[in-house]
Amino acid sequence: MERLILGMTAGALTTISFVPQVIKIYKMKDAKELSLATFAIFSCGVFLWLVYGIIIREWPVILANGITFALICLIIAMKIKYSGTK
Amino acid sequence: MERLILGMTAGALTTISFVPQVIKIYKMKDAKELSLATFAIFSCGVFLWLVYGIIIREWPVILANGITFALICLIIAMKIKYSGTK
Repeated sequence: MERLILGMTAGALTTISFVPQVIKIYKMKDAKELSLATFAIFSCGVFLWLVYGIIIREWPVILANGITFALICLIIAMKIKYSGTK
Repeated sequence: MERLILGMTAGALTTISFVPQVIKIYKMKDAKELSLATFAIFSCGVFLWLVYGIIIREWPVILANGITFALICLIIAMKIKYSGTK
Protein backbone atom coordinates (compact mmCIF):
# COMPACT_ATOMS: atom_id res chain seq x y z
CA MET A 1 0.00 0.00 0.00
CA GLU A 2 2.84 2.37 0.96
CA ARG A 3 4.63 1.37 -2.24
CA LEU A 4 1.51 2.13 -4.29
CA ILE A 5 1.16 5.59 -2.72
CA LEU A 6 4.91 6.23 -3.21
CA GLY A 7 4.76 5.18 -6.88
CA MET A 8 1.62 7.19 -7.55
CA THR A 9 3.08 10.31 -5.87
CA ALA A 10 6.33 9.92 -7.83
CA GLY A 11 4.39 9.48 -11.09
CA ALA A 12 2.15 12.47 -10.36
CA LEU A 13 5.17 14.71 -9.58
CA THR A 14 7.19 13.75 -12.68
CA THR A 15 4.05 14.27 -14.81
CA ILE A 16 2.85 17.65 -13.48
CA SER A 17 6.44 18.98 -13.31
CA PHE A 18 6.33 19.92 -17.00
CA VAL A 19 3.32 22.23 -16.65
CA PRO A 20 5.41 25.18 -15.28
CA GLN A 21 7.82 24.78 -18.25
CA VAL A 22 4.92 24.96 -20.73
CA ILE A 23 3.63 28.12 -18.99
CA LYS A 24 7.14 29.66 -18.88
CA ILE A 25 7.77 29.16 -22.62
CA TYR A 26 4.30 30.53 -23.40
CA LYS A 27 4.97 33.66 -21.31
CA MET A 28 8.57 34.24 -22.49
CA LYS A 29 7.81 33.32 -26.13
CA ASP A 30 11.33 31.94 -26.27
CA ALA A 31 13.04 28.66 -25.49
CA LYS A 32 16.49 28.81 -27.07
CA GLU A 33 18.16 27.59 -23.86
CA LEU A 34 16.07 24.44 -23.80
CA SER A 35 17.85 21.51 -25.40
CA LEU A 36 15.80 20.11 -28.31
CA ALA A 37 17.87 16.90 -28.07
CA THR A 38 16.91 16.52 -24.40
CA PHE A 39 13.20 16.85 -25.03
CA ALA A 40 13.31 14.75 -28.23
CA ILE A 41 15.15 11.85 -26.54
CA PHE A 42 12.99 12.21 -23.41
CA SER A 43 9.80 12.05 -25.51
CA CYS A 44 11.01 8.80 -27.15
CA GLY A 45 11.70 7.32 -23.69
CA VAL A 46 8.31 8.40 -22.32
CA PHE A 47 6.60 6.99 -25.46
CA LEU A 48 8.29 3.62 -24.82
CA TRP A 49 7.10 3.74 -21.18
CA LEU A 50 3.60 4.39 -22.55
CA VAL A 51 3.86 1.31 -24.82
CA TYR A 52 5.25 -0.63 -21.84
CA GLY A 53 2.22 0.44 -19.76
CA ILE A 54 -0.19 -0.64 -22.52
CA ILE A 55 1.53 -4.06 -22.76
CA ILE A 56 1.39 -4.69 -19.00
CA ARG A 57 -2.09 -3.04 -18.86
CA GLU A 58 -1.19 -0.79 -15.95
CA TRP A 59 -3.43 2.29 -16.03
CA PRO A 60 -1.24 4.44 -13.72
CA VAL A 61 1.75 3.88 -16.07
CA ILE A 62 -0.39 4.59 -19.17
CA LEU A 63 -1.96 7.70 -17.64
CA ALA A 64 1.25 9.23 -16.22
CA ASN A 65 3.28 8.63 -19.39
CA GLY A 66 0.43 9.59 -21.74
CA ILE A 67 0.02 13.00 -20.07
CA THR A 68 3.82 13.51 -19.83
CA PHE A 69 4.20 12.62 -23.53
CA ALA A 70 1.52 15.18 -24.48
CA LEU A 71 3.21 17.91 -22.36
CA ILE A 72 6.67 17.15 -23.82
CA CYS A 73 5.27 17.26 -27.38
CA LEU A 74 3.74 20.66 -26.53
CA ILE A 75 7.12 21.91 -25.21
CA ILE A 76 8.89 20.69 -28.39
CA ALA A 77 6.25 22.34 -30.61
CA MET A 78 6.52 25.64 -28.69
CA LYS A 79 10.32 25.51 -28.77
CA ILE A 80 10.32 25.04 -32.57
CA LYS A 81 7.72 27.79 -32.98
CA TYR A 82 9.48 30.34 -30.77
CA SER A 83 13.16 29.71 -31.32
CA GLY A 84 13.74 27.57 -34.38
CA THR A 85 15.14 24.06 -34.21
CA LYS A 86 18.47 24.92 -32.59
CA MET B 1 12.00 -10.59 -22.34
CA GLU B 2 10.63 -8.08 -24.85
CA ARG B 3 9.11 -6.17 -21.96
CA LEU B 4 12.46 -6.10 -20.17
CA ILE B 5 14.24 -4.74 -23.26
CA LEU B 6 11.46 -2.19 -23.77
CA GLY B 7 11.64 -1.03 -20.15
CA MET B 8 15.43 -0.87 -20.16
CA THR B 9 15.48 1.10 -23.44
CA ALA B 10 12.83 3.49 -22.10
CA GLY B 11 14.79 3.94 -18.85
CA ALA B 12 18.05 4.51 -20.69
CA LEU B 13 16.48 7.13 -22.99
CA THR B 14 14.77 9.12 -20.23
CA THR B 15 18.04 9.04 -18.24
CA ILE B 16 20.55 10.05 -20.95
CA SER B 17 18.14 12.66 -22.37
CA PHE B 18 19.28 15.20 -19.76
CA VAL B 19 22.95 15.08 -20.81
CA PRO B 20 22.43 17.43 -23.84
CA GLN B 21 20.65 19.92 -21.54
CA VAL B 22 23.59 19.92 -19.11
CA ILE B 23 25.99 20.52 -22.04
CA LYS B 24 23.77 23.26 -23.50
CA ILE B 25 23.57 25.22 -20.21
CA TYR B 26 27.33 24.84 -19.75
CA LYS B 27 27.99 26.20 -23.25
CA MET B 28 25.41 29.02 -23.15
CA LYS B 29 26.18 29.93 -19.49
CA ASP B 30 22.50 30.83 -19.19
CA ALA B 31 19.29 29.03 -18.39
CA LYS B 32 16.68 31.69 -17.69
CA GLU B 33 14.14 30.01 -19.98
CA LEU B 34 14.32 26.76 -18.05
CA SER B 35 11.60 26.52 -15.43
CA LEU B 36 13.10 26.07 -11.96
CA ALA B 37 9.70 24.80 -10.76
CA THR B 38 9.73 22.10 -13.47
CA PHE B 39 13.17 20.79 -12.54
CA ALA B 40 12.52 21.11 -8.78
CA ILE B 41 9.23 19.17 -8.94
CA PHE B 42 10.75 16.66 -11.39
CA SER B 43 13.73 16.07 -9.06
CA CYS B 44 11.32 15.32 -6.16
CA GLY B 45 9.46 12.82 -8.36
CA VAL B 46 12.67 11.14 -9.53
CA PHE B 47 13.91 10.98 -5.92
CA LEU B 48 10.68 9.19 -4.91
CA TRP B 49 11.19 6.73 -7.84
CA LEU B 50 14.70 6.16 -6.48
CA VAL B 51 13.30 5.39 -2.99
CA TYR B 52 10.68 3.16 -4.66
CA GLY B 53 13.46 1.31 -6.49
CA ILE B 54 15.41 0.81 -3.24
CA ILE B 55 12.27 -0.55 -1.48
CA ILE B 56 11.47 -3.04 -4.27
CA ARG B 57 15.23 -3.73 -4.71
CA GLU B 58 15.16 -3.27 -8.46
CA TRP B 59 18.61 -2.25 -9.67
CA PRO B 60 17.47 -0.90 -13.08
CA VAL B 61 14.99 1.45 -11.30
CA ILE B 62 17.65 2.51 -8.75
CA LEU B 63 20.32 3.04 -11.43
CA ALA B 64 18.13 4.94 -13.93
CA ASN B 65 16.60 7.23 -11.30
CA GLY B 66 19.88 7.69 -9.41
CA ILE B 67 21.66 8.95 -12.54
CA THR B 68 18.65 11.06 -13.60
CA PHE B 69 18.46 12.61 -10.12
CA ALA B 70 22.17 13.53 -10.26
CA LEU B 71 21.77 15.11 -13.74
CA ILE B 72 18.67 17.09 -12.68
CA CYS B 73 20.48 18.36 -9.55
CA LEU B 74 23.34 19.46 -11.80
CA ILE B 75 20.90 21.31 -14.10
CA ILE B 76 19.27 23.04 -11.10
CA ALA B 77 22.70 24.04 -9.70
CA MET B 78 23.83 25.40 -13.09
CA LYS B 79 20.55 27.27 -13.56
CA ILE B 80 20.91 28.94 -10.14
CA LYS B 81 24.56 29.75 -10.83
CA TYR B 82 24.01 31.21 -14.31
CA SER B 83 20.64 32.89 -14.09
CA GLY B 84 19.56 33.32 -10.50
CA THR B 85 16.56 31.57 -9.02
CA LYS B 86 13.92 33.02 -11.36
